[in-house]
Amino acid sequence: MTTPTTPTAGTNPSAATTPASPLTDEQRQRILDAVDAAFDRQIAFTQELVRHPSLRANESSAQDLLYGAMAGRGLTMDRWQLDPVELAAHPGAGAVEISYDGLENVVGTFAPQEERGNSLILNGHIDVVPEGPESQWARSPWDATVRDGWLYGRGSGDMKAGLVANLYAFDAVRAAGLTPTGRIHFESVVEEECTGNGSLSAHLRGYTADAVLIPEPEEDMLVRANTGVIWLRLRVDGKPTHPREMQTGFNAIDAAYFVIGELRKLEAAWNAKQGEHPYFEELDHPINFNVGKIQGGDWGSSVPAWCEVDVRVALYPGITADSAWAEITDALAAVTADSNGNPIATTATKTGFYAEGYVLEEGGAAEQALERSHSAAFDGAKLESFVTPGYLDGRVFVQYANTPALVYGPISEAIHGYDERVDLESVRRITKSIALFIAEWCGVE
Amino acid sequence: MTTPTTPTAGTNPSAATTPASPLTDEQRQRILDAVDAAFDRQIAFTQELVRHPSLRANESSAQDLLYGAMAGRGLTMDRWQLDPVELAAHPGAGAVEISYDGLENVVGTFAPQEERGNSLILNGHIDVVPEGPESQWARSPWDATVRDGWLYGRGSGDMKAGLVANLYAFDAVRAAGLTPTGRIHFESVVEEECTGNGSLSAHLRGYTADAVLIPEPEEDMLVRANTGVIWLRLRVDGKPTHPREMQTGFNAIDAAYFVIGELRKLEAAWNAKQGEHPYFEELDHPINFNVGKIQGGDWGSSVPAWCEVDVRVALYPGITADSAWAEITDALAAVTADSNGNPIATTATKTGFYAEGYVLEEGGAAEQALERSHSAAFDGAKLESFVTPGYLDGRVFVQYANTPALVYGPISEAIHGYDERVDLESVRRITKSIALFIAEWCGVE
Repeated sequence: MTTPTTPTAGTNPSAATTPASPLTDEQRQRILDAVDAAFDRQIAFTQELVRHPSLRANESSAQDLLYGAMAGRGLTMDRWQLDPVELAAHPGAGAVEISYDGLENVVGTFAPQEERGNSLILNGHIDVVPEGPESQWARSPWDATVRDGWLYGRGSGDMKAGLVANLYAFDAVRAAGLTPTGRIHFESVVEEECTGNGSLSAHLRGYTADAVLIPEPEEDMLVRANTGVIWLRLRVDGKPTHPREMQTGFNAIDAAYFVIGELRKLEAAWNAKQGEHPYFEELDHPINFNVGKIQGGDWGSSVPAWCEVDVRVALYPGITADSAWAEITDALAAVTADSNGNPIATTATKTGFYAEGYVLEEGGAAEQALERSHSAAFDGAKLESFVTPGYLDGRVFVQYANTPALVYGPISEAIHGYDERVDLESVRRITKSIALFIAEWCGVE
Repeated sequence: MTTPTTPTAGTNPSAATTPASPLTDEQRQRILDAVDAAFDRQIAFTQELVRHPSLRANESSAQDLLYGAMAGRGLTMDRWQLDPVELAAHPGAGAVEISYDGLENVVGTFAPQEERGNSLILNGHIDVVPEGPESQWARSPWDATVRDGWLYGRGSGDMKAGLVANLYAFDAVRAAGLTPTGRIHFESVVEEECTGNGSLSAHLRGYTADAVLIPEPEEDMLVRANTGVIWLRLRVDGKPTHPREMQTGFNAIDAAYFVIGELRKLEAAWNAKQGEHPYFEELDHPINFNVGKIQGGDWGSSVPAWCEVDVRVALYPGITADSAWAEITDALAAVTADSNGNPIATTATKTGFYAEGYVLEEGGAAEQALERSHSAAFDGAKLESFVTPGYLDGRVFVQYANTPALVYGPISEAIHGYDERVDLESVRRITKSIALFIAEWCGVE
């Protein structure tokens, strides 16, 4: 279900943005009430979306649902398949290890009759990480039940609640009798959990705006800075032998652990430099090298000859993926033998993310508008910002389009874990805040 | 291709064995010459057998070939599927994790017109261990080429050369114009590399004899003693989280490594007791715990919540599998937290071998006959015996049938490794030695 629609070309984001126009108290209240009025439907639609297990390369049915929801709102629709060749030419693209056949982004565009206000991208990703052994979940990761004010399910927090909040926030503005005067693109992208190529593809397709808001699960806060992420696979090869010769042989699983230990020295060295990186000075262990997956050996009674380890490496903003990669491969090349003197040769392959982190400059107009929206939605509370040591698609907008990225979203628990859940009262307030932000930032008539 | 033939019932192995009758020099020479005369055909047939990739649960076509070769020699044939229910009732059976549909043993029996000599089982296993990444082999593991006097290929040494030597040794006796006067069972069994259930099934089917010879690749030597083996799978479960929370989370891959480290303390404790175990006093590290296979985690950017490790544990003869199992599970139960204090719960499952080792008592009649055969085939060299820290089907015969097991076979390299190979001159001499042994042990007319 792709459409031949060409995207609405964006304005030049480097042009001066229109100052955000404050809402009247009465307009603001109408918007807040509209979110409340539709909130049961918003939850129901979020549940429906969670029930689509949009694991990597399985996003289509969830994208169909969002396409229908956007089209039903009268948006101009665009849907296209990611092009691995086009992406590969971009320095921020992640390595592609799977077929992109059928991997499609969906964008719905609202264009005001006369574009007077700031333009906005409301972005979110549809892909979710694997659920793991289902037996570890209290209920199915895909049944999207609500218990004690939490909506449960894989992707509930990360980030289907946010994706749906974008649409319902827009609904609330219109239900309040207001029409935005800035262009708005609603992006539902794939590949956020592995490469970031979904948002990058939307960027390459020409979607730009004066600001982007991405309601990732961020504990009702604004992300000030984050880390970049590189995914790589280590492979250690050796000589398999019969266990009766085990002492003279080389065990690739042991060797892989030795290599990981050496790599963790690099992790420690990078953490030791946190003082040089603004916003990261106070963080507890900002740089995490995660050993996410391991596989090695073929047979219990053969000394294993190979082991592969998937590692996720974090890097400070300002450190390019290329320079981090060079440090990693240098560190691996220096590991030539294990502690018993057995030779080790490790190869490293890029398997996904190859992304630098970003910093959101303080005090921008978009942030100021969000501060006001947040305060109105959260009973006068001040918008807090924080630093998160994880990948965010915000980097595509900040680095390649010079667009301020407001990554800001609801309270969640156990994202990427068992019994992932999102706090529905937080979703309600975030939706209100996004709705007010749309109205302020884009202007209304 | 199963046959309805009922097995020839064995004599009572505890009955006094007939003294082996020395051959005349002339008979001996005729047998040695007959091995040489057929040796090219023996190599060609071994190559053909290696070309059947008789990996576990894929033994059928190789068994077909041996069935045909035995039937063509006029043996009384028997072929049956292993019965996991019958096996499970036996204390020496290995845990069955796969379907046994189509997993069949083949036995061919030679019965003399009048049974005057000792009876003999010539046993070998048809199953081979996985070949691993084929790219690591100089040539395909299945093309069975001969280079510089070595026959290459997975299973060439372990133990298709031996299986075929059993048949060609018998051929040589008959080609020398002699007919054995003792009953001989040629056994081609499955499951030696994982459970030992193939030889155990042949035992349960009623095959017994006054001695068994198993030409495993043993460097032209006789196995005096070996270790028992237990296979188990460790599973460590935890809570997956996003790497941004990695410091507070639990990494099941790290935890599995910690558990392995604790298990290696048990390995060290058992090795420290080698002085208490006859034949193992002088061995370098007789007890090996092999981490053969590992698998854990689902996603590079999720802190892994589970890890499974296949471990092969060795135990001294005299230590029952049950008592070793109790020590292992006690050691695992004592690991309640990792070095950071994170709680660890490990489950251990039996996944294959559950076998005690054995000792071949010195100076038996069968061994004396083999000493003479070996010396004649190896230019007067003395038969050496040694201790091997690996599993052998010999234990089935020694422990459950009170039958002396002569595990004795050719020189090999890299069994269970890449470029596995067997020394053809060694195979020639071993075949000669087995042929002479058949004639001496069973008697000839």
